[in-house]
Amino acid sequence: MNIAMVRYILGFILQIEAVLLLLPTAVSLYYGDAGVRPLFLTAMLTALIGYALRARKPQNQVIYAREGFAVVTLSWLLLSAMGALPFWLSGEIPMYVDAFFETVSGFTTTGASILPAVEGMSKSLLFWRSFTHWIGGMGVLVFALAVLPMADNRSIHLMRAEVPGPTAGKLVPKMKDTAKILYTIYLGLTILQVLLLVFGGMSWFDSLIHTFGSAGTGGFSNYNLSVGAFGNAYFEWVIGFFVILFGINFNLYFFLLIRNFRSVYKNEELRLYLAIISLAVLAITFNILPIYQNLADSIRTSFFQVASIMTTTGFATADFNAWPAFSKAILLIIMFFGASAGSTGGGIKISRVLLIGRMVRREMLRLLHPRSVGVIKLEEKRVDDDTLHGVNIFILLYLMIIIVSLLLLSLDGVDFETNFSSIAACLNNIGPGFGLVGPMGNYGFYSPLSKIVLSMNMLLGRLEVFPILLSLMPSFWKRK
Amino acid sequence: MNIAMVRYILGFILQIEAVLLLLPTAVSLYYGDAGVRPLFLTAMLTALIGYALRARKPQNQVIYAREGFAVVTLSWLLLSAMGALPFWLSGEIPMYVDAFFETVSGFTTTGASILPAVEGMSKSLLFWRSFTHWIGGMGVLVFALAVLPMADNRSIHLMRAEVPGPTAGKLVPKMKDTAKILYTIYLGLTILQVLLLVFGGMSWFDSLIHTFGSAGTGGFSNYNLSVGAFGNAYFEWVIGFFVILFGINFNLYFFLLIRNFRSVYKNEELRLYLAIISLAVLAITFNILPIYQNLADSIRTSFFQVASIMTTTGFATADFNAWPAFSKAILLIIMFFGASAGSTGGGIKISRVLLIGRMVRREMLRLLHPRSVGVIKLEEKRVDDDTLHGVNIFILLYLMIIIVSLLLLSLDGVDFETNFSSIAACLNNIGPGFGLVGPMGNYGFYSPLSKIVLSMNMLLGRLEVFPILLSLMPSFWKRK
Repeated sequence: MNIAMVRYILGFILQIEAVLLLLPTAVSLYYGDAGVRPLFLTAMLTALIGYALRARKPQNQVIYAREGFAVVTLSWLLLSAMGALPFWLSGEIPMYVDAFFETVSGFTTTGASILPAVEGMSKSLLFWRSFTHWIGGMGVLVFALAVLPMADNRSIHLMRAEVPGPTAGKLVPKMKDTAKILYTIYLGLTILQVLLLVFGGMSWFDSLIHTFGSAGTGGFSNYNLSVGAFGNAYFEWVIGFFVILFGINFNLYFFLLIRNFRSVYKNEELRLYLAIISLAVLAITFNILPIYQNLADSIRTSFFQVASIMTTTGFATADFNAWPAFSKAILLIIMFFGASAGSTGGGIKISRVLLIGRMVRREMLRLLHPRSVGVIKLEEKRVDDDTLHGVNIFILLYLMIIIVSLLLLSLDGVDFETNFSSIAACLNNIGPGFGLVGPMGNYGFYSPLSKIVLSMNMLLGRLEVFPILLSLMPSFWKRK
Repeated sequence: MNIAMVRYILGFILQIEAVLLLLPTAVSLYYGDAGVRPLFLTAMLTALIGYALRARKPQNQVIYAREGFAVVTLSWLLLSAMGALPFWLSGEIPMYVDAFFETVSGFTTTGASILPAVEGMSKSLLFWRSFTHWIGGMGVLVFALAVLPMADNRSIHLMRAEVPGPTAGKLVPKMKDTAKILYTIYLGLTILQVLLLVFGGMSWFDSLIHTFGSAGTGGFSNYNLSVGAFGNAYFEWVIGFFVILFGINFNLYFFLLIRNFRSVYKNEELRLYLAIISLAVLAITFNILPIYQNLADSIRTSFFQVASIMTTTGFATADFNAWPAFSKAILLIIMFFGASAGSTGGGIKISRVLLIGRMVRREMLRLLHPRSVGVIKLEEKRVDDDTLHGVNIFILLYLMIIIVSLLLLSLDGVDFETNFSSIAACLNNIGPGFGLVGPMGNYGFYSPLSKIVLSMNMLLGRLEVFPILLSLMPSFWKRK
């Protein structure tokens, strides 16, 4: 482990966070609210620590996959630990563990909240809370790659550790350019959504908050009733449509830009993603029709909720916790499926679901025809055994995390539906679940231990399990 | 597919069932109850169909794995379809789908019941209900192998399809002798348990019923309060101890008989099995102490329930549905772990849990040391990649079955805890779950569709998924 280099990159990351903290500080100056001191203080402190970590430039700048895992784990922990300070220093979230939970929930684009009433908070702090979604969505290391000077052939390890999906590659020969392209697309879509919402009559502030929540597929709102607070069909369609866009692999937008329409049209993950959304919308529309009485409301509400949950965003326009069991079962299942690889969404990812289906089919055929050699393809490319093996282990680790988390959470004595859906909602980076953590509830009642367990779930989900679990192994940190 | 041979073996199996049906018929004559006509009629009908299927001896007697899967799937379906007739014909279970559910639950050693009051039934029918546990425990094909003339080199395919676990082999060179040894051990333990219960003052009838339920790890009782009805600590310790014995790989008893103590002592699956039981008993004892007030009661109740659930039996001495969330979470998790391979218990099996743990560890080490080649061993033997692959696919199929079943069950509108634990309890062949299907509830309220889904879950669990899923593929049945 090249610890010097890990330290050095962490310094960079904290300096970036310090700069990003100036944006909510500016917001607090604009509104003249109570956020200015805690935000500015945190920015300075973060900059200082970042500077200290970067003080000595390492001689050996070579990094491998292992350093990538270490950087990604530590930087996400540090970003959250520092990012939580403004909430705590301002006194608006009195317990640090709550502020940490809220910030991890922000950066991991989960959107689970411990706040009983979000509307009482300072605007600048609400802005920072939602801005963490936007930062975490595309990833802070990818951002670092786009703006910082680094040896190109090594930075792939940082990107691979942060970008979700079974495989990750470059769009263009240079890593730095790939990261720039991704962030440009991200920024472009973000601006487009803000404009569309403002055009529909939403205030600039609300538009920014809800676009950050959509772009990162996070789900924090500045209203207790979430998107339902507007009671505006146009907003619901725009946000529902955009979260679906942000749940698509960003490589496909690059293909669109370079006019490679065939790759988009033929994309298997996109097809399955849209097919599952359509089927779920259809099934829920008819299941909730008796509640909403009218087909138009039923379709819109079903579409919004399926889009929000499948992309692991977590916005709500209805108390889906009160829906029939069948609709809730569908929502719970698509929580685990999640969005596409290479998107800002969480969950297991549709490409893994595809690979799982193909592995199972191959095995069944092999049992019937023992000498058959089934090749598994994805997007017209052969998938190697290591990748398939990785998918299997990923699922097994997912199950282990669920088991351990369930045991720890159940110490609080809350019901099974609440505990299970809390884990599902945090591990898959969604936000609201069922029972006490439904869209009208919050996570405030959990014990500090459970809040830490759920925070770890969010990080495990966002960073796709391996980096964090590896860094828990002592041999991981050994110097060579 | 050698359909003629499949038909021929099915004929045998039905003839065996016809003979076995004479035992409850004799019981009904002894007690002079209402079961005599429906039981005898079913025995005759079953014998007749068996005779018809066996009328023409197939010229080609060669079978492969595929025929093994077909025989096991069809024979378990047929056994249940015929075995359900006495309940239905007697009118004691008015709906055939309920009788089918109850019989599948019996043969698969699940123990889930649709009966609101078991105490009103004829003794002979209760006997038959529990006797199906005993038959299904060791497997009817294994029984057939022990008593019927068959080419030895082919019958391994029948045994492999029915005996649970990632691998199955012979104890002695001849298949027939292996089957005989297994059934002798099974019978010996059964007799021992009956005698111990009778010695403690239980009636012969009750002893037989509860020993059938223990030996098959089934869990049907002839009392609504299950084993709790006796209120007798001695019975609880005996039954708890024996279900643990029946949840151990029967090969180990053979090793004991041939004085190969080292293989038993060193057995990794046995060690993990006992370790999990001990840990679970300890944790639950302290968690339920405030309810029972007294350590002795707490230990005994915890021991009995953990033994009953871990071995997938399903007897109860307490309404564990009313226990704290932590104890319920432990029970839910050990429901999935299940008993040992090669035992009469269900679930994923401890040897698979062991292999999963080792696969995950290997993959983590591989990520740290990319050139390492980890060999996975079980019981001091190297496990080949095909077996490991099979374990992975098994888990994936398990998840798929849970997802599909959850969707179908939730159409009934029952709560999530009930639905999820119903699936867990049926797929893992346990019996009672939580919520409405807790030890004081029953499955009667479910719709016919849900009852069929849950019946399929029981069969999928008992036959370990592959045989049934394969026989749903059209190409499976193609003649060569």
